[in-house]
Parts: sequence; structure tokens; C-alpha cells
Amino acid sequence: MSDIAKGDELPALQVHLTRADLVRYAGASGDFNPIHWSERIATGAGLPGVIAHGMLTMATAGRLVTNWIGDPTAIRTFGVRFTRPVLVPDDDEGALVDITGVVGEVTESDGARIARVDITAKFDGKTVLGRASAEVRLPS
Amino acid sequence: MSDIAKGDELPALQVHLTRADLVRYAGASGDFNPIHWSERIATGAGLPGVIAHGMLTMATAGRLVTNWIGDPTAIRTFGVRFTRPVLVPDDDEGALVDITGVVGEVTESDGARIARVDITAKFDGKTVLGRASAEVRLPS
Repeated sequence: MSDIAKGDELPALQVHLTRADLVRYAGASGDFNPIHWSERIATGAGLPGVIAHGMLTMATAGRLVTNWIGDPTAIRTFGVRFTRPVLVPDDDEGALVDITGVVGEVTESDGARIARVDITAKFDGKTVLGRASAEVRLPS
Repeated sequence: MSDIAKGDELPALQVHLTRADLVRYAGASGDFNPIHWSERIATGAGLPGVIAHGMLTMATAGRLVTNWIGDPTAIRTFGVRFTRPVLVPDDDEGALVDITGVVGEVTESDGARIARVDITAKFDGKTVLGRASAEVRLPS
């Protein structure tokens, strides 16, 4: 990890989010809003269908970084803009989310090397998170 | 919601995170790192014990904002710094996390009113998330 430099690409991640995943996430997070499990209520609220919890999409995008760095406690900051919902169809495949990332900058802070990873999450060819980035403390 | 102004405090939230919650969150998020369920491995890694997934703490803090605004899709951005882990004891009570928030700023953007909510999450009297804030589109 000592040779990590600006421009490095992280191993890409493809994740299927199914309605069963959303139900599990509802139970784990305590967010039982029915737009995440009821087609009727989601469409009634003007959405095209059931959508993933934004925080589940965000957590999934974060997995790109933890998979890469190994140690989840190395992640210092994480922020995103929720730009588009991930629409989850009622089938076994679910929604395919493509996650990629690149090292945008490597800096020094208090003797530690910090990498800023810029993350792109796409669903159906469009980005669903904007300005998504995490700061990671690199192993010395 | 039209009278929301800088300085407004959100209704506070107290959440118990138990080890069972962490196990649920592991299954929902796909993050099965054993520091979130094994005392042996957590202490072997130099941690004082089993710690909550940072993204679970973050999602819990986000619930303060969704509870307040009602519509989860109104949240435009969300970012935190992971400053301290939440240590989850092996009992029925779990870790008590205190979440509070205040409207830090209200701005106009493209005709919409946007509130920046500054969030404080505390465990054992200490903040566990730094620079935690969310931008929320206010109903017109």
C-alpha cells in the first residue's frame, strides 16, 4: 500500500440489490419506510417503483473502499450526494449497481498518509451518487 | 416546515445498538468483518471490544433527520467523519447512542429551500462522528 498514488483505480465492484436485500436493510437499520418494499406505496408517492435506501447504496459504495484497504477502521470520512434513486425490480436479479473508484489525491497529515478516493456508483448507466468520496488512512 | 430557521433543534433521538443489531446489519450490508461480532477477533485487532459498523452509526444518525423531515428522499447530501468507534457490550441494552441536531443554515437553491442540519452523535459522553451534516430540501 506504500506505492498508492493519485490516479490509481480501485478494483471495481458490481452488486445486485434485491428487494430481499431492502427488507433485510429495513430490519437492520430501523428504516421501515414502505417506499423501500411496497410497489403500491412507492408508485403512489410518485416514484417509478420501489427504491433502495440511499444509505444502503452508500454503504455498498463504501464497500469498494473497505474491500480495497482491508481495514474498515482506516476510513476517516465518507460523504455523498444522493442524486438518483436505485430502482429495484421485483425479480431475483434486482438492481445492478456498478461501483468504481479512483485515488483523487494522496496527502500527509500528522505523519499519516491519507488517500482521498473518489467513488462513482452507477445504476442503469447513470450515476446515483454525486460527489462521493472517502478519506482513507494508508498503512505505513 | 416553512418556518424552519437557523438554530432550530431537531427532536433528539436515543438509540440502543445491540450485538444482535450488528449481526442483522452485517447480513443486510454484506459487511461480515468479525470485529463487528467476535470479541476474540476485535480484541485481537487491538480494539477494546466489538464495535458497531461505522455505516450503521451513520445510518442511525441519519434517522434523526428523516424522522424530522418525514420524506427520506428530501435528503440531498450526507457526510461524516468517523472519529471514535461505538463499543457494543454483550448484553441486552447494547450501546446507547445519543443523537441531536440543529439547523446550521437555510439557503435557497434553484427556488428550493435547503437546510443544513449539523448532527452530533455521542456514545459514552463522547462524539463518535465529526463534521456530520446533511443537506435537506424543505417542503415548499
